[in-house]
Amino acid sequence: MGPSNDVALIVGGGPGISSSCARLFAESGMRVGIAARDPDKPVLQKLEKAHGVHRYACDAAQPAAVESLFQNVVRDLGPPTLVVHNIDGRTLDIFRKPIADADPSLVLETLRNSAFSAFLVGQQAARLMRENEPNASGTKGTIIFTNASAALKGFPLSGAFAMACQAKAGLAESMARELMPQGIHVANVPIDAAIGWRQEDGTRAHRLAGVAVDDNMADPDRIAEAYLQLHRQHRSTWAFEVVLRPWVEKW
Amino acid sequence: MGPSNDVALIVGGGPGISSSCARLFAESGMRVGIAARDPDKPVLQKLEKAHGVHRYACDAAQPAAVESLFQNVVRDLGPPTLVVHNIDGRTLDIFRKPIADADPSLVLETLRNSAFSAFLVGQQAARLMRENEPNASGTKGTIIFTNASAALKGFPLSGAFAMACQAKAGLAESMARELMPQGIHVANVPIDAAIGWRQEDGTRAHRLAGVAVDDNMADPDRIAEAYLQLHRQHRSTWAFEVVLRPWVEKW
Amino acid sequence: MGPSNDVALIVGGGPGISSSCARLFAESGMRVGIAARDPDKPVLQKLEKAHGVHRYACDAAQPAAVESLFQNVVRDLGPPTLVVHNIDGRTLDIFRKPIADADPSLVLETLRNSAFSAFLVGQQAARLMRENEPNASGTKGTIIFTNASAALKGFPLSGAFAMACQAKAGLAESMARELMPQGIHVANVPIDAAIGWRQEDGTRAHRLAGVAVDDNMADPDRIAEAYLQLHRQHRSTWAFEVVLRPWVEKW
Amino acid sequence: MGPSNDVALIVGGGPGISSSCARLFAESGMRVGIAARDPDKPVLQKLEKAHGVHRYACDAAQPAAVESLFQNVVRDLGPPTLVVHNIDGRTLDIFRKPIADADPSLVLETLRNSAFSAFLVGQQAARLMRENEPNASGTKGTIIFTNASAALKGFPLSGAFAMACQAKAGLAESMARELMPQGIHVANVPIDAAIGWRQEDGTRAHRLAGVAVDDNMADPDRIAEAYLQLHRQHRSTWAFEVVLRPWVEKW
Repeated sequence: MGPSNDVALIVGGGPGISSSCARLFAESGMRVGIAARDPDKPVLQKLEKAHGVHRYACDAAQPAAVESLFQNVVRDLGPPTLVVHNIDGRTLDIFRKPIADADPSLVLETLRNSAFSAFLVGQQAARLMRENEPNASGTKGTIIFTNASAALKGFPLSGAFAMACQAKAGLAESMARELMPQGIHVANVPIDAAIGWRQEDGTRAHRLAGVAVDDNMADPDRIAEAYLQLHRQHRSTWAFEVVLRPWVEKW
Repeated sequence: MGPSNDVALIVGGGPGISSSCARLFAESGMRVGIAARDPDKPVLQKLEKAHGVHRYACDAAQPAAVESLFQNVVRDLGPPTLVVHNIDGRTLDIFRKPIADADPSLVLETLRNSAFSAFLVGQQAARLMRENEPNASGTKGTIIFTNASAALKGFPLSGAFAMACQAKAGLAESMARELMPQGIHVANVPIDAAIGWRQEDGTRAHRLAGVAVDDNMADPDRIAEAYLQLHRQHRSTWAFEVVLRPWVEKW
Repeated sequence: MGPSNDVALIVGGGPGISSSCARLFAESGMRVGIAARDPDKPVLQKLEKAHGVHRYACDAAQPAAVESLFQNVVRDLGPPTLVVHNIDGRTLDIFRKPIADADPSLVLETLRNSAFSAFLVGQQAARLMRENEPNASGTKGTIIFTNASAALKGFPLSGAFAMACQAKAGLAESMARELMPQGIHVANVPIDAAIGWRQEDGTRAHRLAGVAVDDNMADPDRIAEAYLQLHRQHRSTWAFEVVLRPWVEKW
Repeated sequence: MGPSNDVALIVGGGPGISSSCARLFAESGMRVGIAARDPDKPVLQKLEKAHGVHRYACDAAQPAAVESLFQNVVRDLGPPTLVVHNIDGRTLDIFRKPIADADPSLVLETLRNSAFSAFLVGQQAARLMRENEPNASGTKGTIIFTNASAALKGFPLSGAFAMACQAKAGLAESMARELMPQGIHVANVPIDAAIGWRQEDGTRAHRLAGVAVDDNMADPDRIAEAYLQLHRQHRSTWAFEVVLRPWVEKW
């Protein structure tokens, strides 16, 4: 199975890591699907036009929705060989709040959208990939969980996000220990940085307007490269956890 | 505020760590409450008779129930100075299952019963404790989360438990960084062992009948001692994480 | 073997943790020895007078000197049941220096004084303790390594100290895995703080004159208490690593 | 500065990772030097003949020898842009020995050969690289420390190796925090596996004769690829620590 049989599914569909992955994977010869709550966002429509990326509507915190998603991907593209879970599930409302003031319903929602959706996506990927033939690197499939600094350290005033990120890390670690000896590469990739995405004109932007973006922020195109390298790693030397951080980041 | 003004609340009510804590804290002069889904279990009734422990019904995964619990404790015993969250939330059904075969509803239930209940209990404790006067060790209150080996390592075939335990660890870490500078001691205590509880006759037992219990298993009376020591630590030298493990345990 | 048969040896002899340990251990009924390059320092002479502490001259980076030390302790006090390695081996000259400017001979000296001396002391302790009878807590002996923040994180501009502290942590971990199943409790205790020692008049001081000392700095008397608790832990629930840090410390 | 200006220096010269790195780096257009105690080993002579690799004699535990090495490399090849420290310094004599039976002189030798030599090599690399111009990825240079499982976990019966590996990890971490904001990429790469090197005929071998080598062991050619990827990472997304482990490895 060469790259031309590679099928990538990216769950989570924003203009940052997801879009960079979709572009790079398509350019590398993969058939690519991308799933988002709203698959009609302009940024995703452009990916379809420019790169033939298939768009899927999916609330990844719903078991039935995730099951359908994978069935549709198999039908349209074939069984996935590379699945990226790229939802961090945080809402701005849960940040910078004392624990005493956090809204319990948002905390539970964060856990569901981030960690539970990671479980649902990972489970479907595992079910399908174990039936794949190993490729030239001995890999039946690769499952990558995008994670955040909070997976490495529980910062004050953001307990819910620490819970979600560390739950996702625990899931990834358990899955790696189970699935790697079956030929499925599982990776947890905490991005220890703000992300400045690439705009159409090649310049970069940050979700907070007016923030200067430079090499001080993680470049999602480079993150996508790292994911592709993980997917292509030979099974004699797999990396499970890779923390990516800009050169000037404090840690 | 001396020990005689200490009020302890233990959330989770089994015959192991919770009972040992209730006994030791009561013997140390604290007023003690214990909360469980079923507060009428014989083991809890005995704690009431022998040690004056107050029993409370509470589903700790429900925000309103946890809020009521703390109000009732304040009314009956006064504001808590020591709160122990001792629910691991696992069901036997989620263990030793390949990720592909896990039941999503049990996974979500595990997250709710363990990690989300820890958030709810920790939040109520934080709200009340910040109003306490510091005791002789400079402590306004102590919040202890009992945790498990899975907080340290995501074992294969138990992804849901890894998620729950690491989420709880992340919560504890975030709370510690926020609350310790406010005089509230937060601790995460992974018990890296099977637990053999003490029966009425002083002998010890394990939940699986017929398993020999000895120093090879963690003794909940000793765990309770460690919790009391954490509560009494001076704020110039607080420990956040303490892993307790029997001498013969592999790690 | 009760406390009255306890023999403590503290290697490293300053006015901070070593002195606090010597006082507390003696007050707890142990026979106590303390070893230092210069055992005639006034602070050690006072320990002898006030608490009957035996003083020993020892360069703990010299294999023969450490072997002699333990022979002399056995002769004078009996086989040790509690050994504390409390040398951090840093010199001010190795701090706050770019790696490019570090003096290689000081780096090697730091490794020898800190990590290699920890090996030598731990080795002699292990040789003797395995012959001890277990005490009431099932412990043949306790070996405690005082460590520092650099054991947890390699800070910039202090590479040599990071090397020494992490080497000591690695040694402690290897020894714990080997010796705990033989009844010898091994602990690594990073003190994540500046230490403000207690002076004769009860007030506290810091090695840099004019620095205000309060609960913001670790109190060596409290550290000694934590060590005694570790020594008395029952072997069903041993802690290996305990990080002690003041309530207001950033981490 | 493109790849054609890249100068790689590999310190440590065996038939495994060092040889694979030398080959791959040379094939990628770099000028390559390799340093070993005995640079006349047949495996190194072949690298010279086949790939133009320069050979240097160096005892990397000697400050003056390491300083000379870098001067000679600058003279022959130019200032290095990629330096790999690939000495683990262990001798078979220090393994599988109870701590009580370890030979102190071998322990100190292991520390010197592994951790201290890493400091010496890292220091010279840092001195030179800070004068380099950044390449297209914004990198003035890359320093990679090969490490081992013992950097992650202190195994029983191998305390000296745990000390050496964790010291090296601490050094790498301190250097990364200092040097990355100056444009020098520092990486610690624990290989959590046995290594089966590639022989001339393409088959693989292990240092213990008769051990079957397959994907169960790390392939040094793949490790070299990972090093090259680290060197080429853009500075907006640098990885510091990458653990490489075969798919079937227990961890």
